[in-house]
Amino acid sequence: MKLLEDRILKDGNVLGEDILKVDSFLTHQVDYELMQEIGKVLAEAYKDAGITKVVTIEASGIAPALYTAQAMNVPMIFAKKAKNITMTEGILTAEVYSFTKRVTSTVSIASKFLSEDDTVLIVDDFLANGQAAKGLLEIIGQAGAKVAGIGIVIEKSFQTGRKLLEETGVPVTSLARIKEFKDGQVVFTEADA
Amino acid sequence: MKLLEDRILKDGNVLGEDILKVDSFLTHQVDYELMQEIGKVLAEAYKDAGITKVVTIEASGIAPALYTAQAMNVPMIFAKKAKNITMTEGILTAEVYSFTKRVTSTVSIASKFLSEDDTVLIVDDFLANGQAAKGLLEIIGQAGAKVAGIGIVIEKSFQTGRKLLEETGVPVTSLARIKEFKDGQVVFTEADA
Repeated sequence: MKLLEDRILKDGNVLGEDILKVDSFLTHQVDYELMQEIGKVLAEAYKDAGITKVVTIEASGIAPALYTAQAMNVPMIFAKKAKNITMTEGILTAEVYSFTKRVTSTVSIASKFLSEDDTVLIVDDFLANGQAAKGLLEIIGQAGAKVAGIGIVIEKSFQTGRKLLEETGVPVTSLARIKEFKDGQVVFTEADA
Repeated sequence: MKLLEDRILKDGNVLGEDILKVDSFLTHQVDYELMQEIGKVLAEAYKDAGITKVVTIEASGIAPALYTAQAMNVPMIFAKKAKNITMTEGILTAEVYSFTKRVTSTVSIASKFLSEDDTVLIVDDFLANGQAAKGLLEIIGQAGAKVAGIGIVIEKSFQTGRKLLEETGVPVTSLARIKEFKDGQVVFTEADA
């Protein structure tokens, strides 16, 4: 997705070996117009997949997932990273380790929102080690629902997540794929859409 | 906002003395169409206020804040509840106690996204004790920016938050105002929009 790659080149900041900071348009301040375009592209990629729900994890996945859900005219569900006292009913959970935040969280979705009649598109902001998406696959599997695909805004292709997810047989659609950081600059490989 | 009140009556669940669970359309599964309408109503209420940024806190505030930002054609910023290793620069922080989650969090916004030239509309999903909005007011004040108003999706008017915020002199616009829970049912008082 050229619009996204251009924005990453313009506003992304490479930190150290493997971190890309995109807090001016995706992970902290959000550019709704770019998110809308991302939603349209992901919706187009899965338009014939019979998607009934878009699922993401709080918090940075919510904006792209919401516009994808809008473009597909289905509800969006965001998995929770911490339990709270209003989650009292049947809860599906998975353990997810975040390399960025260096903590393991229990990610959860209320079971009533997913059933074996659902076909899910997972959407997330980053694919690095694939732990978040793997946790979502696990939860959605517990519900007996099908996952038709995983839509990713930015993939760090030099990390292990893409391979991990492809081994599950679920298609991955990454809108920007980063091959490497060279001298502090982002180098892309061909994106999926 | 009648559409919202009707949805609360239809799909909201009263838990115990003071908790309203709206996880089927706002806090877990999200109905984008309703969020869009909420965004339009809040944008209309502050259309002449010269808003330059919409600010919320992760995670349930993101959807209504995003559509409000879209309707006003400005960026949305979501304050973070936990620091992560990509937040390295100047950070503005405030302590916020969540009665729902029973924890105190440090809420933060990168200082580069707010300046004294900004006029902010705060948007949040719930107003109960007002701690989240108070924390945001504090952070935005640290940046020297002005707050033109606070847009709330659901206000529990029987709790102290509304009064706390009104004492700061900042206008509050709540789209649904709950006077009380009577026999497990929601009773509204007149909303602000």
